[in-house]
Amino acid sequence: MNNNGLLIVISGPSGAGKGTICRELMSHKSSDLELSVSATTRSPRTGEVDGVSYFFKQKDEFRKMIDNNEFIEYAQVYDNFYGTPKKYVMDKIEEGKDVILEIDVQGAMKVKQNIQDAVFIFIMPPSMKELKYRITCRGTESKQDIDKRMGNAYCEVCSARCYDYVVINDDIAKAAERVKCIIIAEKCRLNRSKIDFDSFKEE
Amino acid sequence: MNNNGLLIVISGPSGAGKGTICRELMSHKSSDLELSVSATTRSPRTGEVDGVSYFFKQKDEFRKMIDNNEFIEYAQVYDNFYGTPKKYVMDKIEEGKDVILEIDVQGAMKVKQNIQDAVFIFIMPPSMKELKYRITCRGTESKQDIDKRMGNAYCEVCSARCYDYVVINDDIAKAAERVKCIIIAEKCRLNRSKIDFDSFKEE
Repeated sequence: MNNNGLLIVISGPSGAGKGTICRELMSHKSSDLELSVSATTRSPRTGEVDGVSYFFKQKDEFRKMIDNNEFIEYAQVYDNFYGTPKKYVMDKIEEGKDVILEIDVQGAMKVKQNIQDAVFIFIMPPSMKELKYRITCRGTESKQDIDKRMGNAYCEVCSARCYDYVVINDDIAKAAERVKCIIIAEKCRLNRSKIDFDSFKEE
Repeated sequence: MNNNGLLIVISGPSGAGKGTICRELMSHKSSDLELSVSATTRSPRTGEVDGVSYFFKQKDEFRKMIDNNEFIEYAQVYDNFYGTPKKYVMDKIEEGKDVILEIDVQGAMKVKQNIQDAVFIFIMPPSMKELKYRITCRGTESKQDIDKRMGNAYCEVCSARCYDYVVINDDIAKAAERVKCIIIAEKCRLNRSKIDFDSFKEE
């Protein structure tokens, strides 16, 4: 009998709404659902709390963790490192919590190599036109940045084929409901089922 | 782009509550969920309507349908035949309806041979003790009948391993919710996904 929680990996292009979906899921959160906390070498911003927003690490500390194989996945973005600490996630799962990792496609593919029974969910925008509209509406990015983001989004959308589930975010509440259902359904899958068939025979 | 509905096969031992779960699902029914109607050679009982309760058939008519391969599955129970008409189910699925088949393990295994992409859900009682309690509480069956049902239930519970999902019916509303989630999740599975990835590239 295995009472472990699930590891749920959520990716999707910038603007697809994966962050909003995760927040929506956490707002109705059952005590069994948790968002993973990443480690990073970047400096804390105002209001960020160590162990809640991120685990803030010095570069030499982070490199030591890499050497000790302490990350499920990690990446360098410009001058800083970001990574998912293996022990933190695995402890939660062993406590029976379902842990959500909101990471990019490259990170997700590394998780896939390390943790075969994780559940991989890709959040899709309803269309590329809608994605461009959403990114443009933020009003925070230059035309060049928007074009770059759209280019990346094309590549990422093609990677959806490597995921177990594809959820179209046409409506935040509905998309979050679909993700919630995927988690509930996965727990009923025969290969994850916690049923001890022998105990039925012995009764 | 394929807008077909799902074929959902639901089985479970007598007393596990699969009928009640199906009624619960249909009571909150979206227009896309339908219970399949079986064909039978038995006589209509008071209040039963042809095409709603069953498709009532004469024996020679039913035998002709068997010869013409018009059933997804059929079985003879004592003097009567019962079967799932292929055309009726397939028409509904092609209209985009999700069709629920509430059938026994033998029938489900025949469906598995014919329709590979059906979704197979097994409804389990929380324990054999609880199952015996439920069957006994009906008060309609002799001790001999109860023992026979319990014997069959042991065999059926072992067959749960041939299903995609196992739902424990500890609570009708929760069990129905799990089945509903399985249907929603299956529609998001990559291999069923109705997303035309090429249309994203062409935009």
